[in-house]
Amino acid sequence: MVIPVDDAADPRIADYVRLRDSELRKSLEAERGLFIAEGEKVIRRAVATGHRLRSVLTTAKWLDRLADVIGDVPTYLVSDEVMRGIAGFQVHRGALAAVERPELPSVAGLLTGPGSGEGPPGRILILEDLVDHGNVGAIFRCAAALGVDAIILSPRCADPLYRRAVKVSMGAVFAIPYARMDDWYHGLGEVRAAGFRLLALTPDQSAVPLHEAELGERVALLLGSEGDGLSARWLDLADERVCIPMSPAAMARGVDSLNVVAAAAIACHGLMRGR
Amino acid sequence: MVIPVDDAADPRIADYVRLRDSELRKSLEAERGLFIAEGEKVIRRAVATGHRLRSVLTTAKWLDRLADVIGDVPTYLVSDEVMRGIAGFQVHRGALAAVERPELPSVAGLLTGPGSGEGPPGRILILEDLVDHGNVGAIFRCAAALGVDAIILSPRCADPLYRRAVKVSMGAVFAIPYARMDDWYHGLGEVRAAGFRLLALTPDQSAVPLHEAELGERVALLLGSEGDGLSARWLDLADERVCIPMSPAAMARGVDSLNVVAAAAIACHGLMRGR
Repeated sequence: MVIPVDDAADPRIADYVRLRDSELRKSLEAERGLFIAEGEKVIRRAVATGHRLRSVLTTAKWLDRLADVIGDVPTYLVSDEVMRGIAGFQVHRGALAAVERPELPSVAGLLTGPGSGEGPPGRILILEDLVDHGNVGAIFRCAAALGVDAIILSPRCADPLYRRAVKVSMGAVFAIPYARMDDWYHGLGEVRAAGFRLLALTPDQSAVPLHEAELGERVALLLGSEGDGLSARWLDLADERVCIPMSPAAMARGVDSLNVVAAAAIACHGLMRGR
Repeated sequence: MVIPVDDAADPRIADYVRLRDSELRKSLEAERGLFIAEGEKVIRRAVATGHRLRSVLTTAKWLDRLADVIGDVPTYLVSDEVMRGIAGFQVHRGALAAVERPELPSVAGLLTGPGSGEGPPGRILILEDLVDHGNVGAIFRCAAALGVDAIILSPRCADPLYRRAVKVSMGAVFAIPYARMDDWYHGLGEVRAAGFRLLALTPDQSAVPLHEAELGERVALLLGSEGDGLSARWLDLADERVCIPMSPAAMARGVDSLNVVAAAAIACHGLMRGR
């Protein structure tokens, strides 16, 4: 069902309002139970992983190309100019979709349910207070590609379904199950009780190199933000602190850290050892 | 020497003109033999690694803080507003410096000269046609932090001293020696002649997993862009094709690749095995 719209302020396309305003979008998307998928590839992946489209916003150029995925979803057709006015940025590959936000499992449900592989999760990431949507999206992409089974977010972590996270993840946020902790202070207890060994990733070079750490049947890698790293509490609660060995020569020259996505990529790869 | 400037068009600050215009900057910086460092940390790292500042552009708020590093370098003092007008973006940590562009070694010089560690380079990256400055900067940061000895760029690779690359690298572009090939077609021959084993990183999962590849005394990892990967020629010229093992379950869900920085991080880490 194609509906031409010629005004960015048309109330029928209010789901797409002010896409760059992350504060406004946070409350709007929660309230309406939706998220935004950007670009043909991401929209297709959302549909392929069982998400329901509420509507699509696109331009004439993209309409034919999206025909099979749109089906009978209300599709608002706008000019390039109106598209720019709505989005406030150059829309990646000409289409946006408002998608039904799925209900997340509880942490307990996530740990006993199916992971992204076969059987319940054995290799998981737990992200503490990563507030940058791009970093969260990039970490989901690494984790999914390398075979991590599931991800748990601390209460303050950025939303993986925020437009930028979805886009940076290339849709990997749909491919890996995740849950959000209710309680930062006690949240790790539940994971340990489920039989997970907790490894805290730290830049501290006196920690055990990740590739030498004992992994066991179920292991959770705790990952903090680039600037502050993990909280003292989470470092204390971990069974072991692990590090990625850095070059002493580089450290002497002041290159003393990796960005959080690079560290996460190496850590996810290391976590897959022996599987 | 502090020189107040109240007009963005003042010819004395022409080295800082149109910083977001990468085409203009490319010719301007080559012609004048300079590059731009952004932010206190990066400026300090440039100075600490022996680079000569031609001038600094900053605001009153940052002047005291930078006093020791500025010394007697001409320092143009502008208002916040003029700073925004010149830079066309929010300047990260209030200061820019125009820095003397050092002369690069030849590839032969790089391979026989000192690496970033002790002795001549034994572990190097060769980047083919990575045109995104952010990716080049991020890869330099990973490579330097993890102990890669040197980097060779194909003729079309983005300039590591372009402002965005320098910034994303957190100044790591100053910490790792690099050179640029004159000739893409024959360039790898010189590297092999210097005794390097050439490993081509490919997403092709039938290649040897990187962590199982034979490394030897001198090894060069060839890395292509995210979309196109390495050219057929470079793939053919390599001694071995290596891959980062991906999750079959994820590939079945359409998550079939890592971003180039994540892949580079894992590859650099893998390259350091047994050192």
